[in-house]
Amino acid sequence: MFLARIDGTVVATAKHPSLSGCRFLVARRLEADGTPASEPNVVIDWMGAAVGQIVMVSTDGDIARQRLGNNTPARMVVAGLVDAVQQPGGAA
Amino acid sequence: MFLARIDGTVVATAKHPSLSGCRFLVARRLEADGTPASEPNVVIDWMGAAVGQIVMVSTDGDIARQRLGNNTPARMVVAGLVDAVQQPGGAA
Amino acid sequence: MFLARIDGTVVATAKHPSLSGCRFLVARRLEADGTPASEPNVVIDWMGAAVGQIVMVSTDGDIARQRLGNNTPARMVVAGLVDAVQQPGGAA
Amino acid sequence: MFLARIDGTVVATAKHPSLSGCRFLVARRLEADGTPASEPNVVIDWMGAAVGQIVMVSTDGDIARQRLGNNTPARMVVAGLVDAVQQPGGAA
Amino acid sequence: MFLARIDGTVVATAKHPSLSGCRFLVARRLEADGTPASEPNVVIDWMGAAVGQIVMVSTDGDIARQRLGNNTPARMVVAGLVDAVQQPGGAA
Repeated sequence: MFLARIDGTVVATAKHPSLSGCRFLVARRLEADGTPASEPNVVIDWMGAAVGQIVMVSTDGDIARQRLGNNTPARMVVAGLVDAVQQPGGAA
Repeated sequence: MFLARIDGTVVATAKHPSLSGCRFLVARRLEADGTPASEPNVVIDWMGAAVGQIVMVSTDGDIARQRLGNNTPARMVVAGLVDAVQQPGGAA
Repeated sequence: MFLARIDGTVVATAKHPSLSGCRFLVARRLEADGTPASEPNVVIDWMGAAVGQIVMVSTDGDIARQRLGNNTPARMVVAGLVDAVQQPGGAA
Repeated sequence: MFLARIDGTVVATAKHPSLSGCRFLVARRLEADGTPASEPNVVIDWMGAAVGQIVMVSTDGDIARQRLGNNTPARMVVAGLVDAVQQPGGAA
Repeated sequence: MFLARIDGTVVATAKHPSLSGCRFLVARRLEADGTPASEPNVVIDWMGAAVGQIVMVSTDGDIARQRLGNNTPARMVVAGLVDAVQQPGGAA
């Protein structure tokens, strides 16, 4: 899993049937100092993450298969909404 | 999944039998600001993506196996044609 | 597996049910010279790794599935606490 | 899959039994402008790719397992010999 | 698979039970010109690779599961000891 910031949403009318009705979010992985990395990912969200929210993203695909069927092309999903990241030594 | 721009097509006469008849596209992953990353991927397309189209690419392999058989070497496929990416805060 | 330094903890109240009760740590992969890489990972820990501890992180997901069930989105776990890294030629 | 240029061969006498008799090639992934990326991969070839040939490399492992058995450590294989890459807009 | 240079060993007394008795090596992936990349990996070795040896590292996990059980967190193993890398065109 990794930490990411939700930056926006993706609208895609023509898509694989298993993805029908899914909410697609643009998620940018966070660097150690909290800034977002450059390459965004498209993640699926069932937890209601808002734009700006820090989330934990899973790369494992099991939640996606469990909800969308074994043939879904989806893999990255929002696995948790982050309340706080505690780094005693800072992020140097 | 990730966002990518279709840049071209790949012609390969000699290939694994499972790939016979497939349409191979050159897809470049998009950075947060919408510019394409440098290393292109070869993806398979059954959605008719045009050159220049922004797409969602799946890395999961399940669509490929479903259509080309369990022994196919293909994994990345076009999973959706993107109509819009909405980023309220911009892409800074 | 890779070497990482534990930098902190993640608090996430709303999360996938399989992750309930897990300890989430911020782990930064180590470069050859021992400095931490920039993008942190969120790993699950059952070994009691302290902040500052050098650990081996597994990316395989099997420990996670064994303990959290087959549908867990967790994959990276602490697989060992490192006592020493011996590099006879240095880390040039 | 990705595009790569074959740069050479690897000789390894002591290896996993499943790899006995395999042809190992050094393959460097191509950037969008056709230059090879820095980190080479070791791929297995049953298609007779020559040094200098542009190929499609599969990362899926299924061809390898099909031919070398389920316990093989091989995953990347040459999946096609590329005749042409057509990029109407160039590779800017 | 990829080419790597063995740089050292990792000592970890507290670890997952499946890893008991394993030999852990620090392996750095090689760039095209033969210099090692910065982020080392921890690999498991049953072939007796010495420090300084160039090896082929498998990322597939099947050798590890075959020897350490299905629940092992290990995935990268030494799959071959490299005698020579032949690159007719050099490594430019």
